[in-house]
Amino acid sequence: MRSDGRQPSELRPFAVTLHPNKYAEGSVLIEMGDTKVLCTATIDEKVPPFLKGQGKGWVTAEYSMLPRATQTRNQRESIKGKLGGRTMEIQRLIGRALRSVVNLEALGERTITLDCDVLQADGGTRTTSITGAFIALALAVHKLSVAGKLARYPLTDYLASVSVGVLGGQALLDLNYEEDSKAKVDMNVVMTGGGAFVEVQGTGEESPFSRDEMNRMLELAEAGIGRLVALQKEALGEAGARIGGNPA
Amino acid sequence: MRSDGRQPSELRPFAVTLHPNKYAEGSVLIEMGDTKVLCTATIDEKVPPFLKGQGKGWVTAEYSMLPRATQTRNQRESIKGKLGGRTMEIQRLIGRALRSVVNLEALGERTITLDCDVLQADGGTRTTSITGAFIALALAVHKLSVAGKLARYPLTDYLASVSVGVLGGQALLDLNYEEDSKAKVDMNVVMTGGGAFVEVQGTGEESPFSRDEMNRMLELAEAGIGRLVALQKEALGEAGARIGGNPA
Amino acid sequence: MRSDGRQPSELRPFAVTLHPNKYAEGSVLIEMGDTKVLCTATIDEKVPPFLKGQGKGWVTAEYSMLPRATQTRNQRESIKGKLGGRTMEIQRLIGRALRSVVNLEALGERTITLDCDVLQADGGTRTTSITGAFIALALAVHKLSVAGKLARYPLTDYLASVSVGVLGGQALLDLNYEEDSKAKVDMNVVMTGGGAFVEVQGTGEESPFSRDEMNRMLELAEAGIGRLVALQKEALGEAGARIGGNPA
Amino acid sequence: MRSDGRQPSELRPFAVTLHPNKYAEGSVLIEMGDTKVLCTATIDEKVPPFLKGQGKGWVTAEYSMLPRATQTRNQRESIKGKLGGRTMEIQRLIGRALRSVVNLEALGERTITLDCDVLQADGGTRTTSITGAFIALALAVHKLSVAGKLARYPLTDYLASVSVGVLGGQALLDLNYEEDSKAKVDMNVVMTGGGAFVEVQGTGEESPFSRDEMNRMLELAEAGIGRLVALQKEALGEAGARIGGNPA
Amino acid sequence: MRSDGRQPSELRPFAVTLHPNKYAEGSVLIEMGDTKVLCTATIDEKVPPFLKGQGKGWVTAEYSMLPRATQTRNQRESIKGKLGGRTMEIQRLIGRALRSVVNLEALGERTITLDCDVLQADGGTRTTSITGAFIALALAVHKLSVAGKLARYPLTDYLASVSVGVLGGQALLDLNYEEDSKAKVDMNVVMTGGGAFVEVQGTGEESPFSRDEMNRMLELAEAGIGRLVALQKEALGEAGARIGGNPA
Amino acid sequence: MRSDGRQPSELRPFAVTLHPNKYAEGSVLIEMGDTKVLCTATIDEKVPPFLKGQGKGWVTAEYSMLPRATQTRNQRESIKGKLGGRTMEIQRLIGRALRSVVNLEALGERTITLDCDVLQADGGTRTTSITGAFIALALAVHKLSVAGKLARYPLTDYLASVSVGVLGGQALLDLNYEEDSKAKVDMNVVMTGGGAFVEVQGTGEESPFSRDEMNRMLELAEAGIGRLVALQKEALGEAGARIGGNPA
Repeated sequence: MRSDGRQPSELRPFAVTLHPNKYAEGSVLIEMGDTKVLCTATIDEKVPPFLKGQGKGWVTAEYSMLPRATQTRNQRESIKGKLGGRTMEIQRLIGRALRSVVNLEALGERTITLDCDVLQADGGTRTTSITGAFIALALAVHKLSVAGKLARYPLTDYLASVSVGVLGGQALLDLNYEEDSKAKVDMNVVMTGGGAFVEVQGTGEESPFSRDEMNRMLELAEAGIGRLVALQKEALGEAGARIGGNPA
Repeated sequence: MRSDGRQPSELRPFAVTLHPNKYAEGSVLIEMGDTKVLCTATIDEKVPPFLKGQGKGWVTAEYSMLPRATQTRNQRESIKGKLGGRTMEIQRLIGRALRSVVNLEALGERTITLDCDVLQADGGTRTTSITGAFIALALAVHKLSVAGKLARYPLTDYLASVSVGVLGGQALLDLNYEEDSKAKVDMNVVMTGGGAFVEVQGTGEESPFSRDEMNRMLELAEAGIGRLVALQKEALGEAGARIGGNPA
Repeated sequence: MRSDGRQPSELRPFAVTLHPNKYAEGSVLIEMGDTKVLCTATIDEKVPPFLKGQGKGWVTAEYSMLPRATQTRNQRESIKGKLGGRTMEIQRLIGRALRSVVNLEALGERTITLDCDVLQADGGTRTTSITGAFIALALAVHKLSVAGKLARYPLTDYLASVSVGVLGGQALLDLNYEEDSKAKVDMNVVMTGGGAFVEVQGTGEESPFSRDEMNRMLELAEAGIGRLVALQKEALGEAGARIGGNPA
Repeated sequence: MRSDGRQPSELRPFAVTLHPNKYAEGSVLIEMGDTKVLCTATIDEKVPPFLKGQGKGWVTAEYSMLPRATQTRNQRESIKGKLGGRTMEIQRLIGRALRSVVNLEALGERTITLDCDVLQADGGTRTTSITGAFIALALAVHKLSVAGKLARYPLTDYLASVSVGVLGGQALLDLNYEEDSKAKVDMNVVMTGGGAFVEVQGTGEESPFSRDEMNRMLELAEAGIGRLVALQKEALGEAGARIGGNPA
Repeated sequence: MRSDGRQPSELRPFAVTLHPNKYAEGSVLIEMGDTKVLCTATIDEKVPPFLKGQGKGWVTAEYSMLPRATQTRNQRESIKGKLGGRTMEIQRLIGRALRSVVNLEALGERTITLDCDVLQADGGTRTTSITGAFIALALAVHKLSVAGKLARYPLTDYLASVSVGVLGGQALLDLNYEEDSKAKVDMNVVMTGGGAFVEVQGTGEESPFSRDEMNRMLELAEAGIGRLVALQKEALGEAGARIGGNPA
Repeated sequence: MRSDGRQPSELRPFAVTLHPNKYAEGSVLIEMGDTKVLCTATIDEKVPPFLKGQGKGWVTAEYSMLPRATQTRNQRESIKGKLGGRTMEIQRLIGRALRSVVNLEALGERTITLDCDVLQADGGTRTTSITGAFIALALAVHKLSVAGKLARYPLTDYLASVSVGVLGGQALLDLNYEEDSKAKVDMNVVMTGGGAFVEVQGTGEESPFSRDEMNRMLELAEAGIGRLVALQKEALGEAGARIGGNPA
């Protein structure tokens, strides 16, 4: 049994509050246990210079933690004057993952920026950000669709993410901070609603891991992401109805 | 009558949620109408280099807006690589204002940092930050006191802030964004619970103002801050009982 | 009596040298006691991007202190790699104050940049910068006018600034550095030639202040600024003749 | 058959030049096809602040590409004034991977920095950097050992890395740039000499991938890394004799 | 005859105002024609980290131009966020040149920083800065000496600098901006009072130059610097009496 | 006799490897003793903004040292976030020197960027960079010429550079690092194939130098550069045939 009483294959309590922000085209407050991330989607009717005139849109993400999202306070990156390596790595991951389920031609020449701001962190902030950012993205795309601005529906599938790890010889799903800091292996998995892999990032800095351990982690991740996608569908309701209806 | 139906001397709906953050030594989510600011207080058991060995503590503040706190998205200052002038001005103001009611000797050689992160902005973010940051500060100081770490109580008074302005010849209290952008004069006032002025910052870029207009604005501000201090007292309850009991 | 022998309501010796710089469209060396600021006005026949095509001009300011303008040497901000909060706050204030007496439509699509470089600092550098920058601005506008480039005269009034404070229970005008560092309250006031307020910034970090103290300071400021405006008129002579002749 | 005539499971020509730099404690020029990376190891007899006094050493890496390592010239990051996200991600990966086979206690309170400078890039620069950096690290550790500075041997195993991908339905080993830019999936794998996984990073931005595709890629990677480790052993010869002789 | 009526071997009018700054340990306003540089010397009773504990002092320089020192306004380097290459080159030159006549052991463990701020530029700002900075340095050293803080006198000789060039086939001394921008060769020469070379920097970007042209320029420079040193002696008077009395 | 057995007027062993980089329009690895510099030339079919529409091209250079090019490791400038003064000075020198033998009109509206990356440093990196960069530039221009893109040949002469110094009263050619760090005078000389001076930069920070010493150094430099130009001709062969055939 885990320190918070969960089974190895059990997700933490999951909560979603839609529309916490009155300005954003899509927004969600997502909670996985004590990890809380505010995700907003902003639609901008133009694309970055490298895409101009190609008839395609763009989806990108930014990630940040409030200074006191963690046990000890972190200095703001605005004061350091630059983004740290961890932040860059995470926001590149979120953007890349989301784009894997977006038909950029169908989106048209516009950019959707997903801001993932971690209000409180207790492990799994990058995976929770992906799961939440997908919901905010879906709300924004739904808004475009309702406004008649989309000829084809650009979301080709659902997308969610979870962390898995090995701790005390046991594969565990959805690690909290305490587990994460003790785990010998840590893996972040992003999958589509259809069950395909989008990202697999496993790290065994403390201790290399075997093929068998990887397989056990992947199985937990598959099951966990299946449940997260079901929760996303429930949260989005009608706003998610057209997702995947128009495969790329 | 104002666009949101308020009287000229009426504050917007005020809400305070204590302890929204499980790590910070003090935290509050403060709402003035649609302006929402998350304020956390972090205690650090050391002081900045310029104060070392003087037996005094320090109180400082940082201010930031989430990118989509506003109608259109703002670029993050971490990505610009530096703080803008507006941010610096505001966080210097918040820190200075809070220190006016702190006996730094009584605080002892420790630093309290107030982070004011604006989740949603609808005018008055700097004044709301001051009002909220005082509550978070009071919670953190109370915690120190309960832990027996304070010989004397360092908070010498309550502190709150509000904006006032002149619009259409009429002095108005607590401007929302729409009013603020149309006002000919804009003034931010910070006062103590005892009714003394800590900061008065009036700007008539659009149109210079008269002594009489200033007086009318100051009267509205005095009354409004009086009500805000009453609301702070109610929110803090027992945690605010010793404030001012040990004047500097 | 004050340490330099002045009366509470007495300004420091005031001196103005016109045209110290042979390239600038307007320039002045202004001295208030030992505070010396070189102010130059540069006219650029274009406007910042946010004003393009609106038929309006822009007036902006930059402020800097030479490293040894003060008793101990300050590191250059060019070497720190960024402007400090104090610098940003001051240059925003100078620009905002000057714009309050400029009819930007009458100025036409051009930018006037006022550079205020403090050669020596002895208190009141921001207020002296405003008073001097107005003269440099007036010289530059006069030059445009003489060259027949202005249909309407864009300066709607004179503008000057002074500091006031409370020290030892006494309200004092035009504080020098020694007084400023001991004062319990410090207020910077900017007013037009016509006696209206443009900026009032009072700070009581050391000690909150009463409405009565504010009133006494404002009275000193009004009288002092009246004298400064008279001195500006004398210095500008014919070059100031059309100021205010064409109210916005 | 691949564009350069290789079999799907075939590595590109591999070449190693030891000691290309006369100053570094270890250095190697590694070539995988047209990808050429200069790796140097620098020993510094102290540790970063966060490790001080713990009796442990540190291994870290930096990665950079010369501006014309690629088909079109890239701007230097020193001129941009900051490291890009890709650079940070790669150098964090290299450092983390190397540390997985270093017993930091056995290394003692010293830091080894691996500089990986890409002279020419044709795909797989990060994996080639890891394979080369391990050799440079081993040379530096050997030098410490020969000098009698190590009580225990700190390298617990060999370490190498390779990329794999799926292109045209076929899993391919060691992608060159042309293949990499067309592949639907791209995976970087780092493994120990003993065959355990240290990092697995698979990305399907263009197209999500199946468990079966992942398995086929991992098999190619395992075989390829086995061959790279054999080549490392041959290159290091006697200098690699004690690696793994003293497991953590 | 030159555009300003000078002979080829004639210096521009030279003026020196001592002590323009009331705080600095040494200060001078130097004018060579319309080029005006304010030079201040600051004594700091400590040395940079690389010199700590060696019983030696340090002399360094910083150089900057006010934004409107030139015909068109230059952006401040504090706003660009970094020093330009030209600034760095010049301030390295000034510091290096000054140190050539300072016995750093005799100076003792203290740093003298020379700030050279160009108020107005009309060619030769770097050479004028050197000539002026030497005077400010001599004043500061004299002050140390008078205060009894120096066992030996650290200045081993006078030092001055001038520019020379070739224009229309004619070698010219002390070029103003107009001449400088048309010259085919431009050379800056720094020499000691004793007539030895400290720096020779000749550049023929527009047109390479011959050994004969170099010789003619060096002769002009030698004569010009001789006259500048005489002027420095006159300006310093008694404060320069011990210079060179204690050769290194 | 010198520490490495050379005569005072003897160059170090000189080696040139053409085309070490498969992408660059011109590239060379140049070695002067243990100093090794990789020089690449990149042609870009546009010019910097300040040259747009003038029918002229541009030649510029960048210089960098790998972190472990030297005996002790240097921090990367990309991590410091800015170029140091020495780097800026050197790359400005390289660009300026190269432009002195380029007819920019004949080059046409294109930019050639020379990247000089020091792989190993043993004195004379800036002079070796110039000598090598000229070869890379000549290869790139030859390529343009062969492709029929040049109406006139833009290279007006050969260009090479060497250092000279005075050590133990003896003038020496081509100093290595050990000699350079002990020399009382250090001079870098750039000359054309025709024997004219392009840059002369002599520095006597440790000890001022006489006209006679300068003359002896210049003579050594002239002879040394003559030999370097002969070696450049040999290395370029046919690719250098048109250099100087079309004087500016």
